[in-house]
Amino acid sequence: MERVKELQHRLAAERLDCLVVTHLPNIFYLCGFTGSAGALVVSLAGATLFTDSRYTIQAREEIRGAAVRIVRGSQNAAIGEVTRGRGRTRAGFEPAHLTVAQHAHLARAAGKRVEWVGLPGAVEKLRMVKDPEELERMKAAARLVSEVFEELVLLVKPGVREIDLAAEADFRIRRKGASGPAFDTIVASGKRTALPHAHPSSKPLGKNELVVFDLGAILAGYCSDLTRTVFLGRASVRIRRWYRAVLEAQEAAREALRPGVAAGSVDATARRILKRYRLERRFIHSTGHGLGIEVHEAPRLGRNEKARITAGNVVTLEPGVYVEGIGGIRVEDDVLVLAKGTEVLTAVNREFLEL
Amino acid sequence: MERVKELQHRLAAERLDCLVVTHLPNIFYLCGFTGSAGALVVSLAGATLFTDSRYTIQAREEIRGAAVRIVRGSQNAAIGEVTRGRGRTRAGFEPAHLTVAQHAHLARAAGKRVEWVGLPGAVEKLRMVKDPEELERMKAAARLVSEVFEELVLLVKPGVREIDLAAEADFRIRRKGASGPAFDTIVASGKRTALPHAHPSSKPLGKNELVVFDLGAILAGYCSDLTRTVFLGRASVRIRRWYRAVLEAQEAAREALRPGVAAGSVDATARRILKRYRLERRFIHSTGHGLGIEVHEAPRLGRNEKARITAGNVVTLEPGVYVEGIGGIRVEDDVLVLAKGTEVLTAVNREFLEL
Repeated sequence: MERVKELQHRLAAERLDCLVVTHLPNIFYLCGFTGSAGALVVSLAGATLFTDSRYTIQAREEIRGAAVRIVRGSQNAAIGEVTRGRGRTRAGFEPAHLTVAQHAHLARAAGKRVEWVGLPGAVEKLRMVKDPEELERMKAAARLVSEVFEELVLLVKPGVREIDLAAEADFRIRRKGASGPAFDTIVASGKRTALPHAHPSSKPLGKNELVVFDLGAILAGYCSDLTRTVFLGRASVRIRRWYRAVLEAQEAAREALRPGVAAGSVDATARRILKRYRLERRFIHSTGHGLGIEVHEAPRLGRNEKARITAGNVVTLEPGVYVEGIGGIRVEDDVLVLAKGTEVLTAVNREFLEL
Repeated sequence: MERVKELQHRLAAERLDCLVVTHLPNIFYLCGFTGSAGALVVSLAGATLFTDSRYTIQAREEIRGAAVRIVRGSQNAAIGEVTRGRGRTRAGFEPAHLTVAQHAHLARAAGKRVEWVGLPGAVEKLRMVKDPEELERMKAAARLVSEVFEELVLLVKPGVREIDLAAEADFRIRRKGASGPAFDTIVASGKRTALPHAHPSSKPLGKNELVVFDLGAILAGYCSDLTRTVFLGRASVRIRRWYRAVLEAQEAAREALRPGVAAGSVDATARRILKRYRLERRFIHSTGHGLGIEVHEAPRLGRNEKARITAGNVVTLEPGVYVEGIGGIRVEDDVLVLAKGTEVLTAVNREFLEL
């Protein structure tokens, strides 16, 4: 498999005999396994998935490009032993995805002849650049969530509870073929829109309120992530101005998003626009994040992020303003970076909807 | 807060100056925070939550018994600095919930005068014994998922797809007030029931097939977990025998579940019954697991588990048999351990339903 080969090149370059991949999204990327427990050991000779007997059949059905070893008992012990079996060895691990306890267990099982070397972000780096098959899936996931939003808007009226809309969202996401929401669906109304990560509550929507929807779907293993803010009634001049600022910040960020720029400069662009509106202090999170197998992955579009944008990246662009006691506005789309320009994968009108 | 105090007693006993709690369910247990990023530092003087500006308002609303510090930039750096500020210090951490990368970052920020000591399972140990308020929530979560199952059964008929039933399940779970499913809802039919963790597919239910539902809900922060297996049509003598074996194994496990016994002996009891039916090799997972803020927590009811059962534990009992090419059967309930006897929290008939 091409992806395993790319990783093997990296191992050779780092003079590593193997890499123990413990992050499940990385395992899915490399061999297709969707179970909830396992580790993939990639060596120059090939890849082996270690998992348990719950996944015997599933692993056989799903896995491409790797052998499968069903472990009864401790996986860390089994992996440690295999590593030790090779004699003096440099074994890589994922420092951001291995706990201190697992590391100690692995090292004990492997013994002193194995040197453990942290190799951060090796698979994540490959995952940053989406291939055509991945892009097909991401486009479908983005279309799906766009359709769900269009349907939800029709249900927005005073008296409907936030949780009712969230339940409808998740139901429609599933019914359209997604394996589920990509994260806890956000439906927030009124003052609660000032919480960027509001949990849907039993609060009914009221007249003359902001309503924020933040929805995602996982389709064939890939995520989408869409936010729209609407107003139930006629918005004040101030609210419309905030909306315009957020939208303008998003458009400017999209203009800035191109191969070769630093991720942080995209974030800085959005902030610059909001500053012009004197709203920069109301923007309390980063401008966006990479999207793919995980809903948050590299590159992160935050302050001072040095990572370089490349063609094939898919990121969210989601500036927002949040004012305690009044409300918040966020507009978010999923954007693919092309060699020239960008392609917006989510397909929903961005103008301010007053319902 | 009582829970923080209990933890402080433990810190004193271990001669630790503080414990850095990084596992979100443990943080929720100790101070009520439901955000997706943060760390709680518990010292003998008190507790402080470190989180970021997305959670300024939410933290203020939710948190009881802890101060809040909103960090701009790296949380590990901020925590490391606070720890260092105390001079020569023994700082505890959760080895199963801190990555190697986080640990290195913390240690670097704290400097050499701070000694880092892994303290595994300190909060998990407290969480194993549920207090009356927690039990109220768990009973409500178990009732909720039981009601959802009763409604779903009415929708089971040939031609309905697995994903349709899964979507209905999640919709009803939400509409009844849960914040969401406690895990990816399982609806599997026919041969696919032989996969213990089947993802719902677009396969329609057929006549004369097994159908497995494995559903959970998170209500007010606490999980439930229920499995039932039904048959669409009239089952063969063999299938009925398997069902009887699983049910008998579950009943025997419940008899064995009492304060003072080892968790492994409950598992052994279930296996003994299945062995009598010559089905022990078809039972490919453990008998159950603790349940609470997490859907899998201590104690685990697996082979040779030495942990002692105590009153106030809530565990699942979920033996199953799985035969590739034919199908699988699992029956699962949530059970509270009392000083004398047990209380089953899930409230659904366990007899074999042939629809």
